[in-house]
Amino acid sequence: MLVVMKKDSSEQELAGVMQKLTQSGLTGHTSKGVERTVIGVVGQTYPEMRDTLELLPGVDEVIPISKPYKLSSREFQPENTTVKVGDVVLGGDKLTIIAGPCAVESERQILDTAKAVRAAGACILRGGAFKPSTSPYQFRGLGKQGLEMLAMARAETGLPFITEVLTPQDVELVAEYADILQVGARNMQNFSLLDEVGKVNKPVMLKRGMSATIQEWLLSAEYILSQGNRQLILCERGIRTFETYTRNTLDISAIPIIKKLSHLPVIGDPSHGTGKWYLVAPLALAAVAAGADGIMIEVHPNPDQALKDGAQSLTFENFEQLMQQVAPVAAAVGRRMPIESEEADGE
Amino acid sequence: MLVVMKKDSSEQELAGVMQKLTQSGLTGHTSKGVERTVIGVVGQTYPEMRDTLELLPGVDEVIPISKPYKLSSREFQPENTTVKVGDVVLGGDKLTIIAGPCAVESERQILDTAKAVRAAGACILRGGAFKPSTSPYQFRGLGKQGLEMLAMARAETGLPFITEVLTPQDVELVAEYADILQVGARNMQNFSLLDEVGKVNKPVMLKRGMSATIQEWLLSAEYILSQGNRQLILCERGIRTFETYTRNTLDISAIPIIKKLSHLPVIGDPSHGTGKWYLVAPLALAAVAAGADGIMIEVHPNPDQALKDGAQSLTFENFEQLMQQVAPVAAAVGRRMPIESEEADGE
Amino acid sequence: MLVVMKKDSSEQELAGVMQKLTQSGLTGHTSKGVERTVIGVVGQTYPEMRDTLELLPGVDEVIPISKPYKLSSREFQPENTTVKVGDVVLGGDKLTIIAGPCAVESERQILDTAKAVRAAGACILRGGAFKPSTSPYQFRGLGKQGLEMLAMARAETGLPFITEVLTPQDVELVAEYADILQVGARNMQNFSLLDEVGKVNKPVMLKRGMSATIQEWLLSAEYILSQGNRQLILCERGIRTFETYTRNTLDISAIPIIKKLSHLPVIGDPSHGTGKWYLVAPLALAAVAAGADGIMIEVHPNPDQALKDGAQSLTFENFEQLMQQVAPVAAAVGRRMPIESEEADGE
Amino acid sequence: MLVVMKKDSSEQELAGVMQKLTQSGLTGHTSKGVERTVIGVVGQTYPEMRDTLELLPGVDEVIPISKPYKLSSREFQPENTTVKVGDVVLGGDKLTIIAGPCAVESERQILDTAKAVRAAGACILRGGAFKPSTSPYQFRGLGKQGLEMLAMARAETGLPFITEVLTPQDVELVAEYADILQVGARNMQNFSLLDEVGKVNKPVMLKRGMSATIQEWLLSAEYILSQGNRQLILCERGIRTFETYTRNTLDISAIPIIKKLSHLPVIGDPSHGTGKWYLVAPLALAAVAAGADGIMIEVHPNPDQALKDGAQSLTFENFEQLMQQVAPVAAAVGRRMPIESEEADGE
Repeated sequence: MLVVMKKDSSEQELAGVMQKLTQSGLTGHTSKGVERTVIGVVGQTYPEMRDTLELLPGVDEVIPISKPYKLSSREFQPENTTVKVGDVVLGGDKLTIIAGPCAVESERQILDTAKAVRAAGACILRGGAFKPSTSPYQFRGLGKQGLEMLAMARAETGLPFITEVLTPQDVELVAEYADILQVGARNMQNFSLLDEVGKVNKPVMLKRGMSATIQEWLLSAEYILSQGNRQLILCERGIRTFETYTRNTLDISAIPIIKKLSHLPVIGDPSHGTGKWYLVAPLALAAVAAGADGIMIEVHPNPDQALKDGAQSLTFENFEQLMQQVAPVAAAVGRRMPIESEEADGE
Repeated sequence: MLVVMKKDSSEQELAGVMQKLTQSGLTGHTSKGVERTVIGVVGQTYPEMRDTLELLPGVDEVIPISKPYKLSSREFQPENTTVKVGDVVLGGDKLTIIAGPCAVESERQILDTAKAVRAAGACILRGGAFKPSTSPYQFRGLGKQGLEMLAMARAETGLPFITEVLTPQDVELVAEYADILQVGARNMQNFSLLDEVGKVNKPVMLKRGMSATIQEWLLSAEYILSQGNRQLILCERGIRTFETYTRNTLDISAIPIIKKLSHLPVIGDPSHGTGKWYLVAPLALAAVAAGADGIMIEVHPNPDQALKDGAQSLTFENFEQLMQQVAPVAAAVGRRMPIESEEADGE
Repeated sequence: MLVVMKKDSSEQELAGVMQKLTQSGLTGHTSKGVERTVIGVVGQTYPEMRDTLELLPGVDEVIPISKPYKLSSREFQPENTTVKVGDVVLGGDKLTIIAGPCAVESERQILDTAKAVRAAGACILRGGAFKPSTSPYQFRGLGKQGLEMLAMARAETGLPFITEVLTPQDVELVAEYADILQVGARNMQNFSLLDEVGKVNKPVMLKRGMSATIQEWLLSAEYILSQGNRQLILCERGIRTFETYTRNTLDISAIPIIKKLSHLPVIGDPSHGTGKWYLVAPLALAAVAAGADGIMIEVHPNPDQALKDGAQSLTFENFEQLMQQVAPVAAAVGRRMPIESEEADGE
Repeated sequence: MLVVMKKDSSEQELAGVMQKLTQSGLTGHTSKGVERTVIGVVGQTYPEMRDTLELLPGVDEVIPISKPYKLSSREFQPENTTVKVGDVVLGGDKLTIIAGPCAVESERQILDTAKAVRAAGACILRGGAFKPSTSPYQFRGLGKQGLEMLAMARAETGLPFITEVLTPQDVELVAEYADILQVGARNMQNFSLLDEVGKVNKPVMLKRGMSATIQEWLLSAEYILSQGNRQLILCERGIRTFETYTRNTLDISAIPIIKKLSHLPVIGDPSHGTGKWYLVAPLALAAVAAGADGIMIEVHPNPDQALKDGAQSLTFENFEQLMQQVAPVAAAVGRRMPIESEEADGE
């Protein structure tokens, strides 16, 4: 932490800051510039210290220089984290393809979709049983029944599944069924929920909040990691900007930034990131090219009948085409597809 | 809902849309312009309908024209809602002044503050017992002990208090102690929490999420109202923008917009809205001038010792000065102060 | 400027940075913390230095600590700047009220408006002769003819006028007619234009760019001041955010921030700041309450006939009402109205 | 244009709107829904009409449904525009690679860079002679001398060059030297400059403004096209958001959106889009994968000596590596590199 004194600060004010530091068990090293004096603070500081010091007379600004997250940082763990879900390894050499409908609507719908996305090359099924909804009058998901349908589809296809959990009370129930628990964008700073999913022995995917900085996102990751759960995956799904053509602005740069700052795997979600089905393919390719460990795609048997997010869902046919487009881009950046031709053709 | 057809859409495509409407129990009225055909949809539509229709061939855009919120709208209830908390009436002629520390830290701190803000003219005490914190390593509040300290301060001063509830499990506990339950900005779309506070018989203050549009804010209000709790107050506390000088950008325009669109009372929070104590007074005056039903101000006996948000807290002296500044501005816009001179001098 | 070294940086890397500083004629003072070493740079640095130093091995971050603007800062000039325009003093005790149509449309329109706003209490007339327009197919102003109409209205009413200049070539022409030259939001970083208006002997009003930080705004002010023109006024007119209900988000907090960081007068523009006539009054009151030196208001004889920005224009009657609302708020914050009752009634 | 009446609007108000339409030479077709009446307006409307109609009694909202840009729309011209610059074709099968320093600093610097980027596979040289600079105290470019150095580098290497023009007065001069004129982000709504570059017979690259919507960007393109210059290229260079880790947020989704809405070629600029050299490669690959017609990359012989934007510049070695990474991604999306191995190896 650095304390920058005002241009016209007095020696007495400087002494006041030094005294405050000493009282707090810290040491200050002063460095007098042409215009200003700066104090480098040595010792274990805590974030609130900043506010405290900024209020002292003569202080212009306090600048924190340690990153506030630890367990999620690459400095703490230089090697990549990989998360195993059955045979699937997230964060490894192979790209992870997660696909499925926004919401589980019926046995037929989820089973047909699971089969279709499996055939096209996906390795994890997605589907919402508990749905966040901006309006109380919209569809909010099938709940436990939806979880059972997902489990049935897993049994039929062998695909593990990811599904969202909305509230701490439901963590136990969802963890019983799901292979990966998703914390959605609106809950990125639902700290009780973060604490709770930090305690289960199941992988968690943490989506970036729509107005969260990358640092805040890593701090939310820190909540989960610090509770003991190290099976954590991040997911970039778009941020809120002034542009209204897209539902959100998918921040592709967040992907290489996360790879640099953190050891955690990161997935791109072009479906929520754009809100328009015809933008999903180009943005999926962009995410892969930028180094994402995987992509998550909304697929629905009949997007124009979907109860939720039809406009951003691919048909089976469009998803299959996307898989064919992704393969060469993945190869171009040194990634293998989750199910490779040999395997697919094999037996 | 209006369906705008593409310029080059065919008669067959138009027929397809009309058929879809009929199947959904709706009627379509076509209006052919020079460039495009538009279909006005008659009947009870639901939001997902938009996605569905946009996917049909020949459709360019679907434009919803009914507002998606009802109970919170001024069309539904033309007269202002007033919320009574003991002798205090929020949303009436008198301005409501809420003041107190960001977090309850000790009996001494909360009691001293309660007395000081009472003397200066506040009518409701604020103080956090359960604190949301961006980092897991920061102070997260005293919990139940904090609630007891607030209750003690209420007993001593007669001030009702507002405090935040973070998670559905805690709603019952917090409702036992508090006079008003606060739902914080990070939880504006924590729908389980909204449902839960919608069921208690205590007033609720819903803060605007930092990236929430006014429409989304009113939809979150709708969650609470539709559960039956009509004692609802809104609070503008700043939105996230590109400007970094302030912690948030206090959206003063949201105040008259809420008064126009809704019947609910609205409070301004210049402490979180700016993050800097020296901006609190001018923004508090601005909120009052723009028509806010009240203001919420962070006050601390020793801001430079505060465990949380010291930089945005006023000292007792600064709060007293603020009250003296607020009074003439309130009078200028036809509002009375909560405790008027006669009363204060009285006995 | 502070150079923060990486946690694991070597002594050799530190030596490399120190050598670079010496080569650049600067001195470095190192301060070793528990986690990191920080170098305080002494000597005249320049902004590009930051980029250069950040690229050196072992460097984590370079933090500039001197503010990059000088002439516009309150440190440079502690007392308020006042700008005289005829009898009007901007930045003094009296509030400045600027009013008039978005665009000059006809002699009749500008003269009627000038008389009406003069009668209601405005002290400066506004009106656009050269209009920026998002689309090439929209009305772009009457040009020189518009300037002549404004001059005629000034001759008739005695009101000095402000009008926008869009391009360096027009500065001379506009300066011949206008009392104050306005640089619009879209041109805040049109540096050729800033240079040019910095050379004329006429007051300039610089509007904040819709995505400009306060620091960038002050740097644009610096362009004008450093060319020698010290008759400069700033105008907050709203920033671009994700909220779509308003045309822009009027950043009321910018008003007290400018008063703190700079000595320049600052005006609030609630017409462009909201884009809706029914929000103009509450936001005008808010700007005054927050300490603005004045307000600028769009007024039109028939807003529903306006060639530009009718939706945000007040009628004569609404403007008169606004003036009556502004007076007590101005008084509440210690400001006098530009034309006081005695004067108005007098003689 | 659609006029949506208020729920409780009267027949008389409806008649008033219809009369206004008739007066303006338009026809209205009413469509009565359960809740509201909507009027479809037939005839040539203009944007200001919206404001006018919204002010009429009983009107709730006016919704424009024609896109306000024409010449730049794909409806107007279904086939892709290609722009020829010497042997280079922008917008064709081959990817366009533009590379060079932010600013021209010396003959040595620009010549060395031109040779290096040519050898690595670039087909157009970039370099700033007139530089926009946030602060008046920073380097503002070498001006005409810089243009001469660029011309010299072109003569030596055969690479055509692109350079920025800042102000209408300089258009003629810059057009004499440059192969492509660049209009920078800060000037996207400098309408005098747009008019001027619309009149020259040289290709123009229009960068997106940092807070411009895609529609506003296309309207600025419309300025240039409507003056007669159809050799127009667009460039996405990042928008301003709340995230501070990157200099801007490169909006990769803008690339496929432009390809859908418009026939104009679009280039991605990951250097300005991120502001950090180590993010340039992943974002360049993302832009290509998403369908960009080319990329523009800042390259400098010694980024740590650069007078401008060193932190986002690649070294020659890094640029060469990037070219090797781009080639397979380009191939994966069906694009050829500008200089293909045969050619490069050939002769």
